[in-house]
Amino acid sequence: MNLLAKSRVVVVGLGLMGGSLAGALRARCHTVVGLARRVETVAAARHQGLIDDGTTNPQVALRKADIVVLATPVRTIIQQLTDLAPHLPAGCLVMDLGSTKREVLAAMAELPLAIQPLGAHPMCGLETSGLDAANPSLYQGCTFILCPLERTSREALALGEALARAVGATPLCLDGERHDVLVATLSHLSYLIACSLVQTATVTTSHDPAAWRIVAGGFRDTSRVAGSDVKMMLDILSTNRAAVLQSAAAFRSQLDRLVHLIASGGEQPLAAFLEECRSERRRMYG
Amino acid sequence: MNLLAKSRVVVVGLGLMGGSLAGALRARCHTVVGLARRVETVAAARHQGLIDDGTTNPQVALRKADIVVLATPVRTIIQQLTDLAPHLPAGCLVMDLGSTKREVLAAMAELPLAIQPLGAHPMCGLETSGLDAANPSLYQGCTFILCPLERTSREALALGEALARAVGATPLCLDGERHDVLVATLSHLSYLIACSLVQTATVTTSHDPAAWRIVAGGFRDTSRVAGSDVKMMLDILSTNRAAVLQSAAAFRSQLDRLVHLIASGGEQPLAAFLEECRSERRRMYG
Repeated sequence: MNLLAKSRVVVVGLGLMGGSLAGALRARCHTVVGLARRVETVAAARHQGLIDDGTTNPQVALRKADIVVLATPVRTIIQQLTDLAPHLPAGCLVMDLGSTKREVLAAMAELPLAIQPLGAHPMCGLETSGLDAANPSLYQGCTFILCPLERTSREALALGEALARAVGATPLCLDGERHDVLVATLSHLSYLIACSLVQTATVTTSHDPAAWRIVAGGFRDTSRVAGSDVKMMLDILSTNRAAVLQSAAAFRSQLDRLVHLIASGGEQPLAAFLEECRSERRRMYG
Repeated sequence: MNLLAKSRVVVVGLGLMGGSLAGALRARCHTVVGLARRVETVAAARHQGLIDDGTTNPQVALRKADIVVLATPVRTIIQQLTDLAPHLPAGCLVMDLGSTKREVLAAMAELPLAIQPLGAHPMCGLETSGLDAANPSLYQGCTFILCPLERTSREALALGEALARAVGATPLCLDGERHDVLVATLSHLSYLIACSLVQTATVTTSHDPAAWRIVAGGFRDTSRVAGSDVKMMLDILSTNRAAVLQSAAAFRSQLDRLVHLIASGGEQPLAAFLEECRSERRRMYG
């Protein structure tokens, strides 16, 4: 899209998500500016070729910005929407990459009316984090959720969609509430499970020196996201508490059902449950 | 080891585990013979270069066997220990690759005294199965658990260890009961969790067409083993029921603890729990 090519994009927060987005956008925008807290981060992002220019000064960074992308943890995003508002040029598009949307959208609704807000959540996080792991191809092929507000103009939404496509992702418009309920089960629940599994192993088997020589591949996969950044996850859990608790309760009742099937010893119903899981898992991922 | 190089090894069951083992042993033994139920399987294993010779006839296969490896699901192994016993040459080593050991060892104890039994469990299964997925490098670097019986001779154990090393694995001697308790938490629990997660998603979100466009990488990893072979898993659950139920109960109480921390809203204890999970996960896998 023409408008994107002429845009000055400011990426706020140069971690895995922000650094990767900046790197992917460089060839598709007029200028990509990085804004970070630490001078070292800005220098590293420049050294990695992810940004055209960078600063730790919000006022300097945001001057003449056409698009501002907040790529920080959710509660930092919410705070930044208040803190940065006075420096945002009239007409600019403000997006975020936060993992939950309801509270971010509520904060975006408070922005000055001259600003165009657009919630976003690209589904491509990793359990790694930080600028070192940044990679311009991170967004290739992922679904880039967009949550426009009522006040978001058609043009602003189109610009957000162009940005998503420019980094190789597919935009998908979703209501924020619906987004939060879906990701509670399809993303945040996996984290709760992985953490509980690691704690179970810690409590029950880690005293046995043989344990870590025999730990199976299944455990590795199932526990992987327990290594996620804790600050990011705390923000997610605190801004999506109700939906997360609801999906944990749903999971618990499925686990109870399975445990009951195993305990009761009848083979046919257990086999049917497991076959259902297997075909459903295969249907999901082929 | 010299003895292994002179051995005629019979692999019973040419699926992922048996086919891979046969292929890895071919260069290290005198002859590798495959025994399968179906002629097509034998032909395919020969075509894939995994065996020197093969048959569907147990009597033919087992004649002059030095080592017999049962590479079938656990309850089939137990049945085969009875069925094949009359055809086993005196002095031969009988191993299995079953995922649980207590019941297999009990069945091995019933073998004629001229036979040398040795329980085994290489920790390298995948959620794929079948001969098509067989690969001689499957065992490279994995821990190969060996469970000798009281009657197992020192020489027979040494031959089993040599076999494990010959396929690139590291042998680890473990008591069968201890093995079953450890793998309940470190392997079988992951399967229960993955299945429950898939069922939760099926029940709560699969009606939403957006769900499968946004499903996150965490979900993919955490649910991966739900795709495991159901017959194999039914055998595992039925022969390790008590330990599996105990580890499911331990997991449930960790999940309840985490859910309580999230629901109560106090940030410090939740943060401490999550940091503990993260560092424990990193300690496990670096």
